[in-house]
Amino acid sequence: MSTIAAFITGATGFIGSALCRKIIAENGIVYALVRENSKNIDRLPVDKNLKVIYGDLDDFGHIKEQLSQLEIDINIFYHLGWKGVGNKDRNDSIQSQNIESTVQSLLLAHSLGCSKWVGTGSQAEYGPVNSKISEEYSTKPTTFYGASKLSASILTQVLGNQLNINTVWARVFSTYGPGDNSGWMLIDLINTLLDKQKPKLTLGEQLWDYLYVDDAANALYKLGITPNSQGVYNLGSGNAKKLKNIIEITRDLIDPSLPLGFGDIPYRPDQVMHLEADVSKLIRDTGWQPEFNLETGLGRTIEYIKNEKNR
Amino acid sequence: MSTIAAFITGATGFIGSALCRKIIAENGIVYALVRENSKNIDRLPVDKNLKVIYGDLDDFGHIKEQLSQLEIDINIFYHLGWKGVGNKDRNDSIQSQNIESTVQSLLLAHSLGCSKWVGTGSQAEYGPVNSKISEEYSTKPTTFYGASKLSASILTQVLGNQLNINTVWARVFSTYGPGDNSGWMLIDLINTLLDKQKPKLTLGEQLWDYLYVDDAANALYKLGITPNSQGVYNLGSGNAKKLKNIIEITRDLIDPSLPLGFGDIPYRPDQVMHLEADVSKLIRDTGWQPEFNLETGLGRTIEYIKNEKNR
Repeated sequence: MSTIAAFITGATGFIGSALCRKIIAENGIVYALVRENSKNIDRLPVDKNLKVIYGDLDDFGHIKEQLSQLEIDINIFYHLGWKGVGNKDRNDSIQSQNIESTVQSLLLAHSLGCSKWVGTGSQAEYGPVNSKISEEYSTKPTTFYGASKLSASILTQVLGNQLNINTVWARVFSTYGPGDNSGWMLIDLINTLLDKQKPKLTLGEQLWDYLYVDDAANALYKLGITPNSQGVYNLGSGNAKKLKNIIEITRDLIDPSLPLGFGDIPYRPDQVMHLEADVSKLIRDTGWQPEFNLETGLGRTIEYIKNEKNR
Repeated sequence: MSTIAAFITGATGFIGSALCRKIIAENGIVYALVRENSKNIDRLPVDKNLKVIYGDLDDFGHIKEQLSQLEIDINIFYHLGWKGVGNKDRNDSIQSQNIESTVQSLLLAHSLGCSKWVGTGSQAEYGPVNSKISEEYSTKPTTFYGASKLSASILTQVLGNQLNINTVWARVFSTYGPGDNSGWMLIDLINTLLDKQKPKLTLGEQLWDYLYVDDAANALYKLGITPNSQGVYNLGSGNAKKLKNIIEITRDLIDPSLPLGFGDIPYRPDQVMHLEADVSKLIRDTGWQPEFNLETGLGRTIEYIKNEKNR
């Protein structure tokens, strides 16, 4: 295919910045949407093929104006921008405000003549399932975040059909990797262990699906460039492991002699005991496969956090 | 139960104004939200128990301010307001802007201490089904209107659970009656027949569910006052008839000698041939029953349009 020119909202985010690196590595061009005064702009790779567009998800008119002045051809539109993605924000009323910006991003993609729009959803759209989840599962979100992502998914599928623009919606399961935000279990665990503290943990019998961030970015890249990708895709490793094992691997990579506090804290009342993505549709349509096993991915994440601590 | 005090958005609308009349007739108090300079304010009944609150769905902060100055107790919040309800607007991008105002209305209902919030959805949330539809059917909307109503439904159910406020979502099927807007088949048919013109029609073999507007308002009233009503309810007659028969009844009420152009126009490419609400949940939970048969409802509608024409 011809050169990829991608517009990316949420470009300075955890997955967004990994996607920028992937597209640059594949000789594509990236137009990265960045907020004025963004604290995270240094997450973006510095490269002649990455151009920063300043703007905010609340004002797509302004973004459109800037792009029209640049006279550029953009063929893939990635919408990863979403306000309130931290664990604490999952039931904040800010969530639903992202729905309209997602719709606006698709309208912009259409007016730019993009052949494809890729948005990112979440396993939270399904609600608690406790088994391997395929895209055919009924969607019963219980958080306002999940309900808002699901709404954005429904609206963009219908609108995409009407505008005749190919839309893809990737439901992201748990990801991890260098640059992830604290507040998520694995990152907090690594920090605690690097500090030689004993982490307080549940019994850890949950089966959990963790995907390394570069694998997630590769999947989004492939979903973007594959002409016939269409509709909802689960995005996870497709291979859940017992949380206890994941935690032990992490500890062993840091210091096998460190103690672990399994059972120190109870499960949450609504604890999901099995979260696993069925990714066969993604593999079938794009040929994607995860490239990083847990040891490698966790090793890189630990190195990154170590370096951050030493700065 | 104690006196009903209801806040109603969309109060000057077709169903909204019928709901205002119903609540007044039941000795309740209505706070009707009306836009400044509304053309439809004369649809509201003039009654000491109906008070107009001026405001717009885009600014719930302003509505809240006014209500807090009035020091009133509101126990039921009806959100019927929605921008772009005409047939021509069904795929306009204005649709999704109603989602956030629906969320805001629920937040306001919660902050007012209402025990119940009732919102109105649409059969369009299901998409084409071609059989009697229960609330358990999968939702596959094909219009942006249907997708937006479905999104509002999902968001308010989840948010209602979290706020611990009882939410009801009534999926309205086809309604008709005095004061309905032109652009809808039955109203246009009546106008054509009253003008002694031969209406151009399809073969009319569709099975269609038509509910008289006062029956729809009664159902919303009952959903509001029934303490244990909760979740999604279909709102229709539950009794579809062949469109040809409905059209013939209408013609016979106006002038049995008038010709009808059945087959003059083709079905739409995506013509739904069977639209019918399963209303057993509504009947079971509230005891509601439709009170107006088609002959009565159509007779009243024809009289109304006749009077309008003679003004």
